[in-house]
Amino acid sequence: MKKKIAVLPGDGIGPEVTKQAVKVLEAVAHRFGHEFEYEKALVGAAAIDETGDPLPDETLQVCLDSDAILFGSIGDPKYDNDPKAKVRPEQGLLKLRKSLGLYANIRPVKTYKSLIDHSPLKKERVEGTDLVVYRELTGGIYFGEKGRSEDGESAYDHCNYSVEEIERIATMAFEAAQNRRKKLTLVDKANVLETSRLWRQTVQAKAPNYPDVDVEYLFVDNAAMQLILRPNQFDVILTENMFGDIISDESSVITGSIGLLPSASIGEKNSLFEPIHGSYPQAAGKDIANPVAAILSVAMMLDHFGLHEEAEMINTNVDHMIKKGLVTQDLDDHNFITCSKVGDVLSLLL
Amino acid sequence: MKKKIAVLPGDGIGPEVTKQAVKVLEAVAHRFGHEFEYEKALVGAAAIDETGDPLPDETLQVCLDSDAILFGSIGDPKYDNDPKAKVRPEQGLLKLRKSLGLYANIRPVKTYKSLIDHSPLKKERVEGTDLVVYRELTGGIYFGEKGRSEDGESAYDHCNYSVEEIERIATMAFEAAQNRRKKLTLVDKANVLETSRLWRQTVQAKAPNYPDVDVEYLFVDNAAMQLILRPNQFDVILTENMFGDIISDESSVITGSIGLLPSASIGEKNSLFEPIHGSYPQAAGKDIANPVAAILSVAMMLDHFGLHEEAEMINTNVDHMIKKGLVTQDLDDHNFITCSKVGDVLSLLL
Ligand SMILES: CC(C)[C@H](C(=O)O)[C@@H](O)C(=O)O
Ligand SMILES: CC(C)[C@H](C(=O)O)[C@@H](O)C(=O)O
Repeated sequence: MKKKIAVLPGDGIGPEVTKQAVKVLEAVAHRFGHEFEYEKALVGAAAIDETGDPLPDETLQVCLDSDAILFGSIGDPKYDNDPKAKVRPEQGLLKLRKSLGLYANIRPVKTYKSLIDHSPLKKERVEGTDLVVYRELTGGIYFGEKGRSEDGESAYDHCNYSVEEIERIATMAFEAAQNRRKKLTLVDKANVLETSRLWRQTVQAKAPNYPDVDVEYLFVDNAAMQLILRPNQFDVILTENMFGDIISDESSVITGSIGLLPSASIGEKNSLFEPIHGSYPQAAGKDIANPVAAILSVAMMLDHFGLHEEAEMINTNVDHMIKKGLVTQDLDDHNFITCSKVGDVLSLLL
Repeated sequence: MKKKIAVLPGDGIGPEVTKQAVKVLEAVAHRFGHEFEYEKALVGAAAIDETGDPLPDETLQVCLDSDAILFGSIGDPKYDNDPKAKVRPEQGLLKLRKSLGLYANIRPVKTYKSLIDHSPLKKERVEGTDLVVYRELTGGIYFGEKGRSEDGESAYDHCNYSVEEIERIATMAFEAAQNRRKKLTLVDKANVLETSRLWRQTVQAKAPNYPDVDVEYLFVDNAAMQLILRPNQFDVILTENMFGDIISDESSVITGSIGLLPSASIGEKNSLFEPIHGSYPQAAGKDIANPVAAILSVAMMLDHFGLHEEAEMINTNVDHMIKKGLVTQDLDDHNFITCSKVGDVLSLLL
């Protein structure tokens, strides 16, 4: 198989974890006789520093021309505390999502037996947790009209959803549930928001097409509690953009292994794969970052290409490596290997 | 002191916990020579069942005529899964908040040493947690324009905030921080939302007036993680309505004692005091509910009346009772006392 992959390393530890992910991709290519062509491009604070734009046109073009995008991470603290800043690294990511129509953000969260002690939750609460969040990514309050009144004394953000936007991601989530433990939980705020009522109505209307899937509805405030109280009750969680931002980040810390969590953002034509940890600037350049999330993102990419055997091999090797205790400093402060070493091991295991 | 108190028991376990709270209030009145006059009124599903309206005009009038409102809880599962229902119990609560201008919802969360094993978090994570959430309660996406397109194929919810709305609750939160551990964390999504940028700007502008308060800014997705990872880093959390709904509920489960958490909703003229647990219909009528949250809500009411000694006495007695192991079934499945017994004990201790 021949594929064109856009590589957007971004900020902080993005470049170094992306490098290990590409290393593993190359090992897969070699082992299975695929041909992956890489094109690097700037994004985020790195792009602002060089071009003044968090998503230069050239980067967008590279992405549009690619079969998939491997994304590092973006964000730099120097932009965070200036509410009047005109250019922000995050705009690059948001524009990329919108321009490529990446409407479904998929985030699997699972526990690793040998790492369960890292969870902030008690073992008996978190054990067995294996869920995936389907977050709508190109609609809602993120992309509605926003602005200020003329005198600057008030601000607004509009949240919009159409049945069509809800249906396409709901379809994906229902199908995912069919291939998993057959449970889907819609997280909304249907007791307050009209958009949430549209979500609930649309999902209710679709449910009869998936008679094998058990559908539940949870208000977002309750979901935030249930994720802590009994995370293993969840299988597929479906939700809108803003709630998904909060709920998926909350989900990601319950297993204690945020450095291991990948994500995929899928659209009609394009797709982007990204570790969910942030840019973590304090660790940048030290070869201590955990590249597993980026590498598992590559596995999601391979799955998306239909290369299931290849993806499965990476996943199994990661499981094995972790079980053996070959982990980075975030997971074992005494006995750890470097970021690049993880990439080496996972390449050699292929 | 003479006070008029509106009592709105509501649904589920609301009536029984409210009854115990009134019992304790009466004991306070007797011990300190105050005079509290109570007027009961219908709200929520109970009000719909009787009048068709979740907040009958009569109830609103009783509240307007009162010095404070003691609220039980509302909600009935029969209304939850019908997104097209025209009347919902929650509308009663939302209308009450808006009509009385209860703009600041205050929710203290603290750990009890003897109950720390109930926390879903590991002991070393949750120990020492003592925070309070200041949630804006009458603005934002809850009360903005909402509706459907004509063809019903799309829906919208508008989020609005003015500097004035932000300032009045920010002032309260800064003052609370001054009387506590002098740290204030604004939770927003200023990297995406214009309203959040207005929040951040307004809080930044106020900060110099409180030079003794340390101000931090957290994105809501990060806050959802930090609350699990290191809840004891927080002192006062300030946030807008929708984020506050999620964050305050998330906060409420980390200590493992949701049955103990009170709340106050404060406005210019009126104020409402309410346990934060829901209506918990499964437990209703069995005398097993935990009335401590309702009773601590009464302590917040007394504090609000300026009756600090009285409030402090209830708080100390509750601490003592819990330390002694005199708790309801939710906190000790083997050795427990009833809901009404808790009210008796706390009245006798006065
Ligand atoms: C950086 C930010 C705009 C982004 C979001 O809110 O979507 C991030 O938090 C995420 O979840 O990918
Ligand atoms: C019942 C509901 C409308 C309400 C809210 O969302 O504000 C509740 O969750 C709360 O937090 O008091």
